[in-house]
Amino acid sequence: MKTLSLIGIGPGGPEYLTMQAVEALRTTDCFFMLEKEGRGKDELIEARRTILARYLPNANPRLVTRASPPRCMDANGYREGVQQWHERKRVLIAEMIEQELAEGERGAFLIWGDPSLYDQTVSLISDLVAAAPERLELVVIPGITAVQALTAAHRIPVNRVGEPIAITTGRAIRQQDPRAIRNSVVMLDNNAEFQHLTDQDLEIYWGAYLGCGDQALAAGPLDEVLEELLALRERLREEKGWIMDTYLLRRR
Amino acid sequence: MKTLSLIGIGPGGPEYLTMQAVEALRTTDCFFMLEKEGRGKDELIEARRTILARYLPNANPRLVTRASPPRCMDANGYREGVQQWHERKRVLIAEMIEQELAEGERGAFLIWGDPSLYDQTVSLISDLVAAAPERLELVVIPGITAVQALTAAHRIPVNRVGEPIAITTGRAIRQQDPRAIRNSVVMLDNNAEFQHLTDQDLEIYWGAYLGCGDQALAAGPLDEVLEELLALRERLREEKGWIMDTYLLRRR
Repeated sequence: MKTLSLIGIGPGGPEYLTMQAVEALRTTDCFFMLEKEGRGKDELIEARRTILARYLPNANPRLVTRASPPRCMDANGYREGVQQWHERKRVLIAEMIEQELAEGERGAFLIWGDPSLYDQTVSLISDLVAAAPERLELVVIPGITAVQALTAAHRIPVNRVGEPIAITTGRAIRQQDPRAIRNSVVMLDNNAEFQHLTDQDLEIYWGAYLGCGDQALAAGPLDEVLEELLALRERLREEKGWIMDTYLLRRR
Repeated sequence: MKTLSLIGIGPGGPEYLTMQAVEALRTTDCFFMLEKEGRGKDELIEARRTILARYLPNANPRLVTRASPPRCMDANGYREGVQQWHERKRVLIAEMIEQELAEGERGAFLIWGDPSLYDQTVSLISDLVAAAPERLELVVIPGITAVQALTAAHRIPVNRVGEPIAITTGRAIRQQDPRAIRNSVVMLDNNAEFQHLTDQDLEIYWGAYLGCGDQALAAGPLDEVLEELLALRERLREEKGWIMDTYLLRRR
């Protein structure tokens, strides 16, 4: 039997790890990392190294790093492209477990935020467990999400009394009827889709690099703050070379 | 200046606290508790005491406890009843800060789960800060929610690729068109509303006392597991005297 843990590390700083996550680090034999090209690659790797150095100061943990398979745009569409990409990742993870983890050992992936929110590693590994339940066990350790870092930084509730909340993506909010938006948190939006949602009486609570040292915040009625927010977003993106932001849209 | 922290303690066990939350406990002069009548009252208090004993073993922290104002059903409706109840809580919290916290001191409430999710303390205290920003500062420390404990325990993602997720209440899901449910997490449901959502091709991932020692889980196609789940829920409620459950409904 081998064990694989997906350890949620929260949105950036080592202070977001739970005691359960720290304990899981201490019982891990081998850390697996998939290095993705793109936004904040070096900082994401550095944040993981900082966490290991902070919580395993006297250990020299085994690290196994592979390049994450590139995400190809498939001629058959978005969904098919994602499926092929996931299939490649599943094969790669299976190889890492097979080659790098001995019987009885515990491996782990450090997952940004929470392993359950917009991260498909849990599904990929569940498939591997389903194929060989007597040989592999999966453990999931929750972590603080960027959504929670956003609402904590703004000191707001995510839902007002009794109201539902939607968590969605830039891609999905673009396809939605804007009049139906009441409380929506938007993640994975590289195109500032909020700029198309004016004249809807929405307030925005926005944050970039949430939970990191260079966290930036802005809030206000969307129609009033839009120009300033787009300028801030562009300036941050230029200064840093990439931006990762999350925001809550709330009907007033 | 006085500081008030809302410290998210996660769904139950002390292992869910983040390092940031533990650090916040250590710099708190006075812990405020509002004791609510109802489901799990004694266990909620005991869990908070366990957390303080675990992380402040050598301290003897000041504890200030008050009975939480009862929630009255208002003749004018649900919303008005909630407003009156919040007004009473706001007055009570203002009194506690005024009477029990000296200038320069830090007070804290330990908030079950995350202070931003279905907990209005953050709004109540924001109102107090807005009334006297030079005298009171609010700090919010995020915590793991029951939603995250649910998905971690079931080892599932909360959203499938690119799909939005709704977080809602028992009250709200009852009023919703069941055909519109795709991925909904239901909280604060004392009446097992899922029993009215059969014949919708939904899967349920259910958990009670999530994150606690007596956590119970069940999952499957809702139409197939409904009878068994209702029986389990009733048995647990009888054994323990109360039940608190959370579940994800997902269209197949």
